[in-house]
Amino acid sequence: MELFDVIAARHSYRGSYLPEQVPRADLQRIMEAGLAAPSGCNKQTTSLIAVDDPDLLTQIYGIMDSFCKDAPAVICVTTKRIVAYKDGWGNDRCYGVQDYSAAIENMLLAITALGYASCWIEGHVTDADEQGKQIAALLHVPEDESLICVLPVGKPADEMKLVRKKPFEMRAKFV
Amino acid sequence: MELFDVIAARHSYRGSYLPEQVPRADLQRIMEAGLAAPSGCNKQTTSLIAVDDPDLLTQIYGIMDSFCKDAPAVICVTTKRIVAYKDGWGNDRCYGVQDYSAAIENMLLAITALGYASCWIEGHVTDADEQGKQIAALLHVPEDESLICVLPVGKPADEMKLVRKKPFEMRAKFV
Repeated sequence: MELFDVIAARHSYRGSYLPEQVPRADLQRIMEAGLAAPSGCNKQTTSLIAVDDPDLLTQIYGIMDSFCKDAPAVICVTTKRIVAYKDGWGNDRCYGVQDYSAAIENMLLAITALGYASCWIEGHVTDADEQGKQIAALLHVPEDESLICVLPVGKPADEMKLVRKKPFEMRAKFV
Repeated sequence: MELFDVIAARHSYRGSYLPEQVPRADLQRIMEAGLAAPSGCNKQTTSLIAVDDPDLLTQIYGIMDSFCKDAPAVICVTTKRIVAYKDGWGNDRCYGVQDYSAAIENMLLAITALGYASCWIEGHVTDADEQGKQIAALLHVPEDESLICVLPVGKPADEMKLVRKKPFEMRAKFV
């Protein structure tokens, strides 16, 4: 699919998924797309775990208090705090959030291009009840990494609901 | 260009640019791609300013202590702190960094697809000397928005230098 068509077609999907398995080759392409995103000073702070084991998925959905309960696969995103550089005033500069966000956006586009649906689930994972920590323990994520996002992957069973966005002129200009 | 080809072709470019103007239609497509990115709770915290006026560009490059000195256009990215929601423990959850990072990644892909080069310049802009604040003042950015990134846009004059990335197996797995 052509880039601009993919960007226009990508939407957050919060419906049910069809019980069709996602081939690992597709999950691999999606993760490769994520890892191809840039990272501050090339620190590559983001790592990925694709889960398609039904028992593990049931446990993950049991932990998550979320609209996503039946996707046949999820990709869990973890981040490691690595200082990119110290600026001239002695401050540690870290770009972990930027790094994983660019990786997630690439994956959402790849998911769309391959005919699947998804949704960036971060709030529910990183709220103060720390669902991400529980999922990380289940998946044996190393202590120095935080699990901050779960991306469902699967064929949508329901209609995509579109959100309304502000017009271009309210958010962009030329000078 | 096909999505996966664009993702593979995108690289950070730190060389010189050819003095060819970038049509505003292309800058508009790039900004539209950025604004099509998702945002936490659809708060649309990111705004964009495309600059192609030679005098303004000279002033911006004068403020920036950066490798980017001659791109014929730049897109400045601003973010507004908007609370997406209060979690169940009373904490304000804001997704501004995630929102602008997804928008920037979309724009980098659009820039690549249209045959231009760019680089995500954030560190130099948001370091403690606050170059971003100076550029924001020059561009009359509203007080409640922070200018956090400058994306050059133009045809590259030099070779693209590629960074080495860790192998897939070091950053991703299946369970």
